[in-house]
This record gives sequence, structure tokens and C-alpha cells, in this order.
Amino acid sequence: MKSELTREFIDNLIALIGENSGQEVLDLIEDLHATDIAEIMEELNLEEAKYLYMLLDEEKASDVLVEIPEDDRKRFLKALPPEIIASRFIEHMNSDDAADVIADMEEDLQEAVLQEIKDKEQASDIADLLVYDEDTAGGIMAKELVAVNENWTVQNCLKEISKQAENIDEIYYVYVVDDDFILKGLLSLKKLILQPTQAIIKNLVTEEVHSVSINADQEEVAQIMERYDMVALPVVDQLGRLQGRITIDDVVDVIREEAEKDYQMVSGLVGDVESGDKVWQLTRARIPWLFIGLLGGITGALVLGSHEESLKKIPEVAFFIPLIAAMAGNVGVQSSSIVVQSIASGSRDFDSMSQKLLKELSVALITALLFSTLIFNYNFFRDESMNLTLSVSLSLFIVILFASTFGTLIPLVLNKLKIDPALATGPFITTMNDILGLIIYMLISNALYN
Amino acid sequence: MKSELTREFIDNLIALIGENSGQEVLDLIEDLHATDIAEIMEELNLEEAKYLYMLLDEEKASDVLVEIPEDDRKRFLKALPPEIIASRFIEHMNSDDAADVIADMEEDLQEAVLQEIKDKEQASDIADLLVYDEDTAGGIMAKELVAVNENWTVQNCLKEISKQAENIDEIYYVYVVDDDFILKGLLSLKKLILQPTQAIIKNLVTEEVHSVSINADQEEVAQIMERYDMVALPVVDQLGRLQGRITIDDVVDVIREEAEKDYQMVSGLVGDVESGDKVWQLTRARIPWLFIGLLGGITGALVLGSHEESLKKIPEVAFFIPLIAAMAGNVGVQSSSIVVQSIASGSRDFDSMSQKLLKELSVALITALLFSTLIFNYNFFRDESMNLTLSVSLSLFIVILFASTFGTLIPLVLNKLKIDPALATGPFITTMNDILGLIIYMLISNALYN
Repeated sequence: MKSELTREFIDNLIALIGENSGQEVLDLIEDLHATDIAEIMEELNLEEAKYLYMLLDEEKASDVLVEIPEDDRKRFLKALPPEIIASRFIEHMNSDDAADVIADMEEDLQEAVLQEIKDKEQASDIADLLVYDEDTAGGIMAKELVAVNENWTVQNCLKEISKQAENIDEIYYVYVVDDDFILKGLLSLKKLILQPTQAIIKNLVTEEVHSVSINADQEEVAQIMERYDMVALPVVDQLGRLQGRITIDDVVDVIREEAEKDYQMVSGLVGDVESGDKVWQLTRARIPWLFIGLLGGITGALVLGSHEESLKKIPEVAFFIPLIAAMAGNVGVQSSSIVVQSIASGSRDFDSMSQKLLKELSVALITALLFSTLIFNYNFFRDESMNLTLSVSLSLFIVILFASTFGTLIPLVLNKLKIDPALATGPFITTMNDILGLIIYMLISNALYN
Repeated sequence: MKSELTREFIDNLIALIGENSGQEVLDLIEDLHATDIAEIMEELNLEEAKYLYMLLDEEKASDVLVEIPEDDRKRFLKALPPEIIASRFIEHMNSDDAADVIADMEEDLQEAVLQEIKDKEQASDIADLLVYDEDTAGGIMAKELVAVNENWTVQNCLKEISKQAENIDEIYYVYVVDDDFILKGLLSLKKLILQPTQAIIKNLVTEEVHSVSINADQEEVAQIMERYDMVALPVVDQLGRLQGRITIDDVVDVIREEAEKDYQMVSGLVGDVESGDKVWQLTRARIPWLFIGLLGGITGALVLGSHEESLKKIPEVAFFIPLIAAMAGNVGVQSSSIVVQSIASGSRDFDSMSQKLLKELSVALITALLFSTLIFNYNFFRDESMNLTLSVSLSLFIVILFASTFGTLIPLVLNKLKIDPALATGPFITTMNDILGLIIYMLISNALYN
């Protein structure tokens, strides 16, 4: 499957497009998944991509449209009249995909397209979804779902499902609601098939149903679905009325995105880049952190410059500058990362804030003792001066304590302030720790040498 | 839901257990998901946990057993006779969970438990699964699935499904096979319900079915399911015969695990730690990288020590040591992370190895030019000596080029050698880049000053 998409395949395709061999192109791509077609299109120039796209039927074309990158999609849709966008694409999409595509358009075009949608219920569903922030449960849910009344029989249900199911790709569960559309429980299709046709739904329903509020953050959604191994999660409003459902495939994207965001932060990249991206994209992603690193380096130079006299007198103090700076940075990143990862995975933790700090302080104390003893012994047995030996190991001790405490505290505080705690693993804090390390080292060695 | 599990809830539970109020404890935990109960048990001491566990019915007790951490489970099962393990726990589990639990036992116990399983088909399924490496498709798949022959009618199918479905939690798809059990396609339950009962399966089946080989790596499985938004993926042997299915909930765990592994590597942690872990676990996870960092720092000190005379003469060279070392480390990590993330997300990329390097070299050149110009101007306008100004900017230029190239090349090479490319973002390479940076800086400044 994967092997189909090779450089040769694409070169062959481009050649066929060049020869205007529509049918042969279609034969090659017909059985491919929309994701694959979207990826192939990124490798073509605009003319070739258009040619290929126009060969697809409306269903496939809509699926592909959902998968192509936002910027390309925007450019493409801008050139089309609203009625074509509505009839050829939007009407073939699920409400969540449709809302995502429409949300990316200019406001004028959004309205125009919504008005051109023939199925008024679909239009209203999409308009409902456009209200929610894209990072919330409301923003990732779909309106399509199968809901049945708790007072119906299995037979009624199966009939109703046939009716409702036309517009839905897959049914994982049937949601059971009362007369006010309040979610009462769920029913698996399997259970429904296995029951006698006259049984009343109320008696079959699983009442332990996890649901999520429409305003919940998408990370919370991901944590619940992951924690409870769910394939679909119902979304309810503040009255408990069923509003939509979120399927696991959308949540997998959320999990991947969140993990990548944290990973990029700790590796010093800005934005979502991959090795396949263009040179300017790759460069742009790298400059901000390096720039902060440069400013940090300059500040470090100023700190050291203000101790020029001592460095001249005792140059061996300079030898251990990289060691102190690197340890400060590393310890800080380690501490922050542990906190960030724990928050991200949503693992529960029954420690209070003060217990957490106490624990981190114990870890820091052990680590600081261990490494300052090691470096003390190294310098001691190399017969370095006692001043240097003490300066380095004492500084290392204090630096590790400081960097650990900051590293733990800052993401916890950010999280309390509803700011992404992953910021703590980013350039500001690391650079600050480096500089703090240098200042402590210089102060201590100055004190000891004078 | 989440709010139920608070410190107060647990303290209340412990009090009730202390009073021996079994029914009241059961009332509190009965409706909780197995994941939650397992987590609560971790907060109890061994006696309390046992008391609570014994209150659960066999079904729930088995679910909880799957969720508790490996070490605790091992200790718990060691104390039980094989027939109890088989009848009270294993027989209530899906084959994949059962195989995971049994795989963790001592070999003698494994055999004994397998022999005690009354359902011989289940025992044989589990034994089959025990053969596969736990990181492969075979290792994470379950044997439970619903398969129907392509020549049957819808009515036959529904009957067969009722029969097969008894042992299966959820059915997402019905797999269609030929007489040799070769996978021919799939059928959604929805489609089956909506069809006339006399229709022949062959005519309803979706032929575009993605499957995965039983020896495929679990990362590949995750990439396919993620890429094609799949809820269940069929697993086939080399002849194309259907062997099992992998459900998305297991793959979500794989995605999370792989992302966490890469994250831990780049943040300098060893093993899977969370802020809720014990002090010694947290300390143990941090020592290895810090130790390598310490050795790197010592090597750095030796490098600088071998240039003691120049540092004494021109102490301002020392001021920029932290800048050079930090930039080298940062650039290297950025480059490696981009490669690692691209490999992990399985995104296709049609560039050849030499194209990748050429691209990275362009990025490195732009970045190197930009930052060496910036630092040149900084020193120039501060009226530093031309020797220092040139040393720092020229060194920075070369260091960025080197670190980028290594950073890109090393994970690519590791990946070719089937070694986890994330190692390149770990301590060795970062430390190496730091030291390399120092050496380049010292050599260049020595050359320019003499």
C-alpha cells in the first residue's frame, strides 16, 4: 500500500498528465485513499494538480478537499463560485469536515456558501458548528449521529436507524435520549441486532455513559477517550441534551498535534515543520529560538565580561563555564518536561502543589549532592586548587537546586494561569537558567577567591 | 466524571475500608470504569487494595487487572494458583489482553494457566498470540473478530454474527473471507442492517480494504490507522489469510507511547516518568543524561584547559564560550528533531537522501550567515577588537554548519541501521556538538590571535 506511492509512481503520473491521458491517470489513482491523493497533489504543480482533481467524482473530490493543506485549499476555493463549492463539495461532507472547510474561508464567502446549500438541515448543522472554538469539543464534533427514544422498541429503532443512517459514514453506537433529547445512555449496534424486535430500548440501554460538555477543551476530550478506550464520545450541552459526537479518528489527530506541539517546543522549533518542507519554512521554524539563544549568549558574555579581572587572574574558572551552563539548562528542561508530560497525558496525581514541590526538592537535593560530589572529587584528585574545587562543586549544587525548582514551578504556575505549560520547556526558561547558572558561578568563585 | 476522583474521595474510601464496610465501598466504586478503579488501588496500601479488589465481580476484576501496572499485577498473580487465574480472570478477557497478562508471567506459570483455561479455543488463541513480538501487529492484535464467507446471504450473516459476537465487546466491521479464509473485503454493520436479507455478501463488500502483515511494526500499524482514519485494522499472514484485528484504542496507546519516548529522549529523561512517581524513580530517570552532561562538561574543561595561556592573555574570548556552546547544542537538536518527527509521523517525503542533505545544508547556510552577521555586528559596534569579532562570528558560522549537518545526518543513518533515530536528539550527540563547538572556537581564535 505504502509502496505504491514512490517517486516513480509520481513521475509516471506527471508524464501521463502531460500527455493528457485522463483515463490512464484515473486508473492509477482511482483506488487510492483521499489522503494519498491529497499528498500526491502536493507534489504536482498547480496545473497538473487541477487536471488530476477534475478527474475525480464529487464524493472523492470532497474527501480529497478535506485532506489538502489549508493554504492550498483556500487558494483553490477562492477561484470558485459559492454555488459550486456548496453543491460539488460541501454537500458531500460530514458536518464537522464541512464546518472546518467553511471556517477557513473569508466571512463573505462563508455566508454565501451556507446559503447555497440545498439541504437546509445540513446548512443549519454547519452554522451551529461554526460558532464553537475549533479547539473545543463543539469545534471537533459532528452533528451526524443516530439517536433513538428510550421508549421505542428494537423494531422501531432499526427502522429509524435505516432512515437516519443514510448520511452517516459509520455508526458505532446508537444514542438513547428521552423526550427532551437528554442523553440517557447508549446502545451498541451489536446489542441491537442480538435482541428480540419487541424489546423496549429503555431496558437494554447501558447507563454508564461518558459524555463531554460542548465547551470542553479538545485535550480533555482526547484524555477521556484515551483513558476509557472509547471510539465515539457524545457531546452534550449544559442541560445534558445531546448535541453531537466526536469520533476517535479526530481525536487521534488531536493527540498527535498536542504531542508534536510539546515536542517542537522542547526541541526549539516554532510551528509544525517536517523534513519534507521547503527551505524557507524550515529556516523560519528555527530562527526564533536561535535568536533567543543568541541574546542569552550575549547576556552571558556581559555577565562574564563584568568579571573580566577575575577571569584574567584565574583563567581556570573559565574552564568550567560550559559545564555549569549545560547542567543548569539540562536540569531545568528535565524538571519542566516531567510536569508538562504529566499534564498532557492527563494522568491523575493526588499530590497537592506543596507535596509536588517537596518531592521535586528531594529529587533536586539528591541530584545536586551526587553531581557536586562527583565534580568535587574530580577536581580534588586532579590537584586543582581548593578554591576552584569548592567554587565548581558548590556552584553546581546551588545551580541544580535552583534550576529544578524553577523548572517544576514555572509549568505548574503557567498551567494554573491557563497558559500552555509547555512554554516552560522552551527557549526563555532554558536561556534564563543558563544565565542564572553563570551568575551563581561567578558570584561564588569571586567570593571564594577573595 | 473526573471530579469524582479526588483526594477526599480516596480518603473516604480508605476510611470505609478501615471500618470493613464492604457494601458502602462497593456502592462508591461500582459505577467507576476499570481504569479509575486501578488508579485508586495504586493509592491504597496492599491490604486495602486487596480488600477492595475482592469486592469486585469477576468481569470487573478482570478489567481492572488489565489496567493495573505490570509490577503490581505480577506480584498479585504470583500468590494465586493457576486455576484461579484462569477461571477468575483470563477467561473473562479478550485474547489480546489475556495474552498481554500471561506474557508477563514466569514461563512455568504461563503453561500452567494456559492448561487450566476451559475454553480450548480461547487457550489456543492466546497461545498463538504469545508467539509474536509485543511491538508487532501480531503482538497487539486480538483474535476475536467476526468473519463471514463471501458466498453467504445477509440473513446467514446476521445469524453467524449473533453466534460469533458473544465473545466480542464491539463489532466495528464484519470481515469477508473466501473459502480459504483469505481476506476479501469488509462490510460495515450499518450496511448489513440496511440490506435485504437475501442479498449475497460478495455483492455488498467494500473491496478497498487496508490490512497489515502480522509481522509489521506497531509504529507502521499506527501510521496506517492514523493516516486512513481507521477504527479497526485487519491483520493477515503472508498468504493473505485473516489472523486478527487491531482496534484503535490499542493504537492510541502506541501513538502516545512512541510520542512520549521521543519526548523523553529530547528532554533528557530515561524511561517513562510522571510527576506522580516516587522520588527514587524521578531521580533515576534524570541521572544518566546529567552524568553524560557532566562528562561532556569535564571534556569541555579539558579542551579549554589546553588553551589556558591564550585564555589568560585574552580573557574576552572566554566571554563567548556559553554562546558558542549553546548555539551548537540548539542547532543540532533542532536538526535532529525535525528528522525524528518526520520519521515518527510516517509522513511521506519524496526527497532522496542527497536532496535532504542539500536542503538541510541550505537551511544551515542561511541560518549560519544570519547569526554570524548578527554577532559580528554586535561585537563590531561595541568596539571589540577585530580579532575577537572575527573569531566569534567565524566560529559561530562554522559551528552552525557542522551541527546542522551532523544533526540531520545522524538520525537518518541511525534509521537506516534500524536503530531508533530519536537517539540522535539524546545526550551523546548534544554533548558532542557542544564540545565540537568549543574546539572549533578555540582553534579559530588561536589562529586569529597568533
